[in-house]
Amino acid sequence: MPKTERWQWYVEQFSPTEEHHHAVDRVYYQGHSQFQEIGIVGTRVFGKMLILDGDTQSSQADEKIYHEALVHPAMAGAGDRADVLILGGGEGATLREVLRHPDVRRATMVDIDGDVVELSKTYLAEWSQESFNDPKARVIIGDALKFLAEDDDRYGVIISDLTEPLEDSPSNPLFCDEVFRNIKNRLAPGGIYVLQASTAGFHNLSLHAKMARTLRNYYEHVVSYYTHVPAFDNDWAFIACSDGVNLAHLDEPEIAPYCRELRGENFFYDAETHRRIFALPLYLRRALAESGETF
Amino acid sequence: MPKTERWQWYVEQFSPTEEHHHAVDRVYYQGHSQFQEIGIVGTRVFGKMLILDGDTQSSQADEKIYHEALVHPAMAGAGDRADVLILGGGEGATLREVLRHPDVRRATMVDIDGDVVELSKTYLAEWSQESFNDPKARVIIGDALKFLAEDDDRYGVIISDLTEPLEDSPSNPLFCDEVFRNIKNRLAPGGIYVLQASTAGFHNLSLHAKMARTLRNYYEHVVSYYTHVPAFDNDWAFIACSDGVNLAHLDEPEIAPYCRELRGENFFYDAETHRRIFALPLYLRRALAESGETF
Amino acid sequence: MPKTERWQWYVEQFSPTEEHHHAVDRVYYQGHSQFQEIGIVGTRVFGKMLILDGDTQSSQADEKIYHEALVHPAMAGAGDRADVLILGGGEGATLREVLRHPDVRRATMVDIDGDVVELSKTYLAEWSQESFNDPKARVIIGDALKFLAEDDDRYGVIISDLTEPLEDSPSNPLFCDEVFRNIKNRLAPGGIYVLQASTAGFHNLSLHAKMARTLRNYYEHVVSYYTHVPAFDNDWAFIACSDGVNLAHLDEPEIAPYCRELRGENFFYDAETHRRIFALPLYLRRALAESGETF
Amino acid sequence: MPKTERWQWYVEQFSPTEEHHHAVDRVYYQGHSQFQEIGIVGTRVFGKMLILDGDTQSSQADEKIYHEALVHPAMAGAGDRADVLILGGGEGATLREVLRHPDVRRATMVDIDGDVVELSKTYLAEWSQESFNDPKARVIIGDALKFLAEDDDRYGVIISDLTEPLEDSPSNPLFCDEVFRNIKNRLAPGGIYVLQASTAGFHNLSLHAKMARTLRNYYEHVVSYYTHVPAFDNDWAFIACSDGVNLAHLDEPEIAPYCRELRGENFFYDAETHRRIFALPLYLRRALAESGETF
Repeated sequence: MPKTERWQWYVEQFSPTEEHHHAVDRVYYQGHSQFQEIGIVGTRVFGKMLILDGDTQSSQADEKIYHEALVHPAMAGAGDRADVLILGGGEGATLREVLRHPDVRRATMVDIDGDVVELSKTYLAEWSQESFNDPKARVIIGDALKFLAEDDDRYGVIISDLTEPLEDSPSNPLFCDEVFRNIKNRLAPGGIYVLQASTAGFHNLSLHAKMARTLRNYYEHVVSYYTHVPAFDNDWAFIACSDGVNLAHLDEPEIAPYCRELRGENFFYDAETHRRIFALPLYLRRALAESGETF
Repeated sequence: MPKTERWQWYVEQFSPTEEHHHAVDRVYYQGHSQFQEIGIVGTRVFGKMLILDGDTQSSQADEKIYHEALVHPAMAGAGDRADVLILGGGEGATLREVLRHPDVRRATMVDIDGDVVELSKTYLAEWSQESFNDPKARVIIGDALKFLAEDDDRYGVIISDLTEPLEDSPSNPLFCDEVFRNIKNRLAPGGIYVLQASTAGFHNLSLHAKMARTLRNYYEHVVSYYTHVPAFDNDWAFIACSDGVNLAHLDEPEIAPYCRELRGENFFYDAETHRRIFALPLYLRRALAESGETF
Repeated sequence: MPKTERWQWYVEQFSPTEEHHHAVDRVYYQGHSQFQEIGIVGTRVFGKMLILDGDTQSSQADEKIYHEALVHPAMAGAGDRADVLILGGGEGATLREVLRHPDVRRATMVDIDGDVVELSKTYLAEWSQESFNDPKARVIIGDALKFLAEDDDRYGVIISDLTEPLEDSPSNPLFCDEVFRNIKNRLAPGGIYVLQASTAGFHNLSLHAKMARTLRNYYEHVVSYYTHVPAFDNDWAFIACSDGVNLAHLDEPEIAPYCRELRGENFFYDAETHRRIFALPLYLRRALAESGETF
Repeated sequence: MPKTERWQWYVEQFSPTEEHHHAVDRVYYQGHSQFQEIGIVGTRVFGKMLILDGDTQSSQADEKIYHEALVHPAMAGAGDRADVLILGGGEGATLREVLRHPDVRRATMVDIDGDVVELSKTYLAEWSQESFNDPKARVIIGDALKFLAEDDDRYGVIISDLTEPLEDSPSNPLFCDEVFRNIKNRLAPGGIYVLQASTAGFHNLSLHAKMARTLRNYYEHVVSYYTHVPAFDNDWAFIACSDGVNLAHLDEPEIAPYCRELRGENFFYDAETHRRIFALPLYLRRALAESGETF
């Protein structure tokens, strides 16, 4: 890449002392919504990247690692997949993965930022593919908090693809007792609630541990799992919550048939991958076993 | 500036070991013309910046330093300012400065890259102001080389605002004997040819010195001058060539009345500034006195 | 971290378009050996870091992830751990991990760069701890190639902790048929040869796959495994080769007792971690199943 | 410069949005004194650089631009150069320049940071050359504030080479009425006080203007001058104060003989350079003519 092609960079700052710099070969969009600053850029290694408030949300090249990890363990383990609720997920890729299973009759997605959804349709069609036009998709632009409080339906799977509850994040108010109770009220008996749950590196696992500790007050099974997502430059964690199912015990006999039923091919997930992402290294198990603050 | 506002950066690389990084708060345009890669970004300190092939061309905050230094010494010293020729100068700011003097009857600008001109009209209107619509302005999108070879007119002032003759630059073929002769043929007797002429820092003055050595073969007076342009992060040099006038000897009695005749106010240039930019530090005079390669 | 404490940075370049920048709060050492450029710096997140030719070798904060993953699966699976050979491993941490098991009677380490070994003793004592002084340790400063060709002993475990066979690396000549045959000749019957084996991210797995394809020509069981190492900013892979043991099938009954016998506590590795690192995601299994170039 | 030689960088941050990055090919020293963080690094373009609290103090390649500009205008204009006082100037280059003139009988240098002086002797001998050993040099490690309050001598030239009075700088308490009065008390009648006086770029001239406005309350002639110093990536300003001499009016007849009397050759300064640096551009003169805050 000659010098002249390396003049634009996207810098993700993880801390004041750690940064990842990506050379940008194209800026697709850069602007503000009512809620956040939005960037869509092209890079050589990761393809298109969606950036909200300076943080990578997903990349064209490896979004399937993140989205398959977020969606399929819960879907594979769920007793009833007919009605699925997605909180956040503006790119449409979580919706896409949910709709790949034939059991799904309705996939409801609630995202507060209509601009992100529209920009994703325009610039990130590789993410959502045709899912926004799927007749089974119900896309609601609105406040998840309000939706959870007013909705009356029950969902076999609830998937939270919200940004992390950092202090200055629009997702911060969504991490409190009222919301946890409302989510649980929307979950069908034995249903599964899965959420993206921050980072799980040895040096940045405290927020994840706090989320896990909090959710143990609401569910019988609260299981952490994670995978490295190269575009995030981080080990990314998820938490699966249920009073009926412990996803850590799911194996080949349940996962293989589930995967065969999916439309299209997986990139990342199958029974062996499931074993990988639910088997945690020693230091993380130790950290999760410690007591500490909750939300 | 919070972390989330510092995720886009424009990196200008001066050498493999020296870079200037500007945080970008807005990308106005990013794309390619037939000739070069074009970026227009907004920064906090320099305002909008025009970037061609990864190099800063001018910034909203200090383009007047560059453009007043390029245009006014030659215009102040010229015997006849009625007909002025500008090579390059796509932003329209060189044209703007030329048109500020009431003696000018026609300002002809020849730039090869129509995209840069159109983008400048759209995004950099602060540069050109109304000059592209001035009835005295003749704007030709085309090859300066061809124009010089085919044109029959004579100009009292010729101003070259081309990018430097680096090996991979579209301006490279414009730095050869044929062009030098054609330019001289287009110059009215006693006229002045002034060109932007690369950098004059102690560590990067060799291209400038080579340009000056070359032009001494064509003109009686070949005078270097320079000013630091903060957005360029460099001492930027110019060369004034003439068989009639030595601009280094121009002073208050000629410059003050010239400046008073200009429409609007100067930001940078007047007689004292002229003294500054034409008085060269010892190391630069020594370097210019050495013999060496020519084009 | 105030501005004044963020003036030194270590930039690891993964490709011309991807870089990780670490703010450096202390430079412990910077210089050249006969073989490579050596840096030892301190950072806030990763503590001390050893850098050879601009690439991170290990960090104080997470070197145990790398070294436990490199050493313990092979040691746990080996039938005979009395005599262990380490190629490379200058920091002394591979040696340290090997010496933690009471079965080990002799651990031979051959590293070409005596400067790296001495600097590690001085600055990175947290890595080697007392292992360089352990009477069971035999440390040979010399060429691994020559050692393998001239040595007559047989080892139950051979661990290669050499830098990758990149074109300009001193390890490049160590990746060829002659060396593969020599290593196999030094391996006791049923012994295990394990090597660090480059990156296994979706975007940078080709060198690893080539290494795996090559080694399949020499051993019956050639098993890839990997873990994300945050200081490397990469999924780091290993290959375990043996004609007797398939490490992918090792489980709790073998691993748990092995770990209990180790002096001190593990940070990363146990049976559950073993399950994680040997279970590969779908895209990596697919890539490893493809045919292609070999060394 | 191959990738492996570009892993260490010195980043000078001018504002949260503007940075200059220098690749470092050698770290000579990095540590803390009682007063500040000290770095001495080698770069390809600027040679060795001295860095205090993250700011460039001077570079081997262009320190003469700064030091000749600081010292020689005042020395050339001074009626009596026998006794010269230097505040700060730890590298020893200000001392070196002062001692080049045969009129000087005693050059007193007061610097608070003995570590900087010792490190400069060890690593930056090109700066001080033999000046620290010159019998005319009197080097006092101590507080300039205290020295000025207690000293009884009078100096024909006082040169302040202190860091700028930024809020967190050790020089901040040195910019107040008491010190200004003490300095004036130490100045021989008609003597000249010259100080380095921050930046004079269009975008960062306010501190300089405040310094100039303040000093006008103490001296009849308060003259700003500046030069671009590439290693500083800034237009660097100075202020010359005197009740007897206006340095802006100094010219060839005084400067040429002075320069001839200097031991060795100048790199930057002579009468033409003097004309350059004392002729200010229009925008700076306008800014200096405005009223505003003082210290």
